[in-house]
Amino acid sequence: MMIVVAYDVNTETASGRRRLRLVAKTCMKYGQRVQNSVFECLVSPSDYLVLRHELDDIVDLERDSMRFYNLGAKYSTRIEHVGRQRHVPVDDVMMV
Amino acid sequence: MMIVVAYDVNTETASGRRRLRLVAKTCMKYGQRVQNSVFECLVSPSDYLVLRHELDDIVDLERDSMRFYNLGAKYSTRIEHVGRQRHVPVDDVMMV
Repeated sequence: MMIVVAYDVNTETASGRRRLRLVAKTCMKYGQRVQNSVFECLVSPSDYLVLRHELDDIVDLERDSMRFYNLGAKYSTRIEHVGRQRHVPVDDVMMV
Repeated sequence: MMIVVAYDVNTETASGRRRLRLVAKTCMKYGQRVQNSVFECLVSPSDYLVLRHELDDIVDLERDSMRFYNLGAKYSTRIEHVGRQRHVPVDDVMMV
């Protein structure tokens, strides 16, 4: 299934900047970065639980925010892209 | 249907900063800001076309990037949130 991970990490402090790096590094293990703070992760349900667990250990729940969007298995028609492309499409994601 | 709009606008120039403001202002007419560069827009198919048209007129396709994720009508189980909340949930979006 395709999970979109979007996050806002408070980078006012050094620890916040560290959290930001760790969140990105963790997401990179599971998927592609499509925007500064957005990853698309093609994961099994069990991998998704591990990803969530790793991210929950990193973020500060009082200061950071994460949104997870589950696009399911048939996700390519659910994604549209406009403008500068950041990554090589995983498969035939619709370009408009 | 729920459309997630995620964007990266190049803000190195004054015109880029202006585009960023206009993109946010446009998305605000259609939905809620859930992160710095992420909006959730509950729109009809026709409103979605108008939104897309307005945004296409604003962004610089060479420098900016927009991703649109269509979560469909039954979207609440597709969204999970962790951490700092930015807006009042539209309805019973699952908080974990």
